Amino acid sequence: MKSNSIDTVLELRLRHEPGTLARLAAAIAEQGGLLCEIETLRIGDEQTLREITVETRSTADVARVIAAVEKVDGVTVMSTRDRVMDMHQGGKIRISSRLALKNVRDLRTIYTPGVAQVVRAIQADPAVAWTTTWRGGTVAIVTDGSRVLGLGNVGPLAALPVMEGKAVLYDKLADVSAVPLVLDIATPAEFIETVVRVSPGFAAIHLEDIRSPDCFEIERQLSERLRKPVFHDDQHGTATVVLAAIMNATKSVRIPLARARVGVIGLGAAGTAIASLVRRFGVDEVLCHDPDPRATARAIAVGARSVSFIDLLATADIVIAVTGRARLIDPEQIRRGQIVLALSNPDPEIDPRAALAAGAALASDGRAINNALAFPGLMRGAIESRSRVINHDMMIEAARVIASRTEPGELVPSPLARELHEAIAAGVVRHARKTGMAGTAAP
Amino acid sequence: MKSNSIDTVLELRLRHEPGTLARLAAAIAEQGGLLCEIETLRIGDEQTLREITVETRSTADVARVIAAVEKVDGVTVMSTRDRVMDMHQGGKIRISSRLALKNVRDLRTIYTPGVAQVVRAIQADPAVAWTTTWRGGTVAIVTDGSRVLGLGNVGPLAALPVMEGKAVLYDKLADVSAVPLVLDIATPAEFIETVVRVSPGFAAIHLEDIRSPDCFEIERQLSERLRKPVFHDDQHGTATVVLAAIMNATKSVRIPLARARVGVIGLGAAGTAIASLVRRFGVDEVLCHDPDPRATARAIAVGARSVSFIDLLATADIVIAVTGRARLIDPEQIRRGQIVLALSNPDPEIDPRAALAAGAALASDGRAINNALAFPGLMRGAIESRSRVINHDMMIEAARVIASRTEPGELVPSPLARELHEAIAAGVVRHARKTGMAGTAAP
Repeated sequence: MKSNSIDTVLELRLRHEPGTLARLAAAIAEQGGLLCEIETLRIGDEQTLREITVETRSTADVARVIAAVEKVDGVTVMSTRDRVMDMHQGGKIRISSRLALKNVRDLRTIYTPGVAQVVRAIQADPAVAWTTTWRGGTVAIVTDGSRVLGLGNVGPLAALPVMEGKAVLYDKLADVSAVPLVLDIATPAEFIETVVRVSPGFAAIHLEDIRSPDCFEIERQLSERLRKPVFHDDQHGTATVVLAAIMNATKSVRIPLARARVGVIGLGAAGTAIASLVRRFGVDEVLCHDPDPRATARAIAVGARSVSFIDLLATADIVIAVTGRARLIDPEQIRRGQIVLALSNPDPEIDPRAALAAGAALASDGRAINNALAFPGLMRGAIESRSRVINHDMMIEAARVIASRTEPGELVPSPLARELHEAIAAGVVRHARKTGMAGTAAP
Repeated sequence: MKSNSIDTVLELRLRHEPGTLARLAAAIAEQGGLLCEIETLRIGDEQTLREITVETRSTADVARVIAAVEKVDGVTVMSTRDRVMDMHQGGKIRISSRLALKNVRDLRTIYTPGVAQVVRAIQADPAVAWTTTWRGGTVAIVTDGSRVLGLGNVGPLAALPVMEGKAVLYDKLADVSAVPLVLDIATPAEFIETVVRVSPGFAAIHLEDIRSPDCFEIERQLSERLRKPVFHDDQHGTATVVLAAIMNATKSVRIPLARARVGVIGLGAAGTAIASLVRRFGVDEVLCHDPDPRATARAIAVGARSVSFIDLLATADIVIAVTGRARLIDPEQIRRGQIVLALSNPDPEIDPRAALAAGAALASDGRAINNALAFPGLMRGAIESRSRVINHDMMIEAARVIASRTEPGELVPSPLARELHEAIAAGVVRHARKTGMAGTAAP
């Protein structure tokens, strides 16, 4: 199954005898539905009540599956609901108090008059805000909604569920409070101005889903103007995870990564950052290709060499495609022994199976390369060490941790293990201390 | 004891015999310390371990109290800590996920690819964002830190603890997620522009601690430009609570409020809003006084009549002073039977006891008039009914609820009862439905 699928939950009453579930499963499969979770809610003598989750491609498929299930002998559909819309009801995050509010003394401590003491302490020494406000562990996730997932320019409001999703990951994986800020702005200058003005309340700025090339200018200017980490996840989060993946890929085919020839196709936010990070890691030969000359110029500026699409595929040991264009690469163009990462979602530049059949040593698509692997720990480590930046060396450190915690046969580990993110954060903190970056952030 | 006091927690070992605690209490009192909570941590045969909280005026007082306690026979000071700074460690609020993140299906539902379905639903109909994002129950608490508590212009960072305090109250009293946004801006225009740009992610804007007269222009323009509630608490929260207080005060002295002559001294944010709301409530004669002619003009525009300070005190049935100037009113100026609310913190315009001694029928200072009484329920009701404004009639409705839930002998109830805020919210929702304001907010 590909991405962008719809999960539907069907509440069913089933006749309690062998074969009912088998007929149900067959009917769902016949309509192209993928049967996933089955949960038993109640068991009676004659009937069982169950909730099943079915994955389908489209809304039309959902209707077909439901119609087919209704015709199965011994099965009654009690209700159906859309699992995604269901789970998003009421939003995915909330702000809650860390303190109890039970009596007048609590009120006087948390609010006025007690709080005045904290205000004065921060006035006297702004660094006190690190420990006496939520700011020490809080980042803003900022977007204008101009390039959301594979959906394009959806605007600020429609981008909000994605930012909330990132905030869930921050909370659950790295214990960071992340505030979604979806901006109604018209120009990069307005974006920058707005973030500068709201920045005093945040330890760092996480930029997300901003169209290229605006994202480069916005990140550059904010990094210059704010003495705190400014991190564009679509660039650096992706680059970090890709670096981890090619560390593992080259290990499994026994090529030293630093001596491999790495080719990057598509020089948007992700491609440019990948080229840049791979160069910084120590790969001498980074080839790149993009039809846009301005995009190519940016990649050349970070040390990549521009070549034709044909030449790149003919000579690179590792091909990384981040173009957003499905089936861009013909299997015949794959070179024997190549490592191929075709990362566009939902449809990759080449189907990994086709690449392998054409002789690739290793091939993967974007589903495994999950951004959730990198940003929570990187950000946690940066704000914990009070570094003013998340730099390339910290990303390389994070990639090493990610690569080292991968099961044999996989390119990257599951993003759901908290220990992974703790290890990344610890690596970043160590690096910040060693290089003198710790404590360089604005109070 | 006045406000702005310091709470110190002393961990003490006491000889376990009658009289030890009495000697301790006497020593603290001698140094002007106010002994508050006593908590027993451990009881042994010879010794008890206790934590006591002492309230003092200044840091110098704290040192004197500790020195005195150390000299008390049978008492050993184990440790001391500052209760306020202690409780504020790590900040007072956090963002947390409302959903579990246990497996890949959770990840796929909360984040990509599942979340794309919610994005598309909002693109097709922005109103879907009310229910599928946190925005339906989330407000921004926005300040530039230009007039914080009694402390003046402390700037954005030092204002943050106060905004977090408000967010605690929103969470605990009305189940609203409130995001503190402390702005680094130079002009009202920049303030307005910034709030407009961040507004898509919030159901309403709570303005806080902004200097006068900037606050009026900021509120006016934001109300015009945003189709959602814009609520300046220092104006309308205060006015609502004051209205509730004078409803009860006039009841207890048996004057019908609508026929009383109400005088407002000091026409900053609070004074202007009080004059305006009291007029709207139906009081014909609202007198006002302020040395600043522009401030006076604003009060006249909302229907108050400007008189001299002397005349106001000589003729008003109810005197409301919100000047920020301690001991402004001479007890000799108090008229027999007057109701006097001297609301400036920490030091009122006249000590209530002095006012009563001078013949006032009823006198109070600002400590009882707690803003936490009004804003949580008002905001909850406004966003629940999706009203585009919190208008005067809703504030009057809230004041009625607050007044009706007051114990005999008090002017207002305790702000800590959740039922109070639920009742206010229900009143606002009812009013919004009745007047057609429900559903008028931007999706």
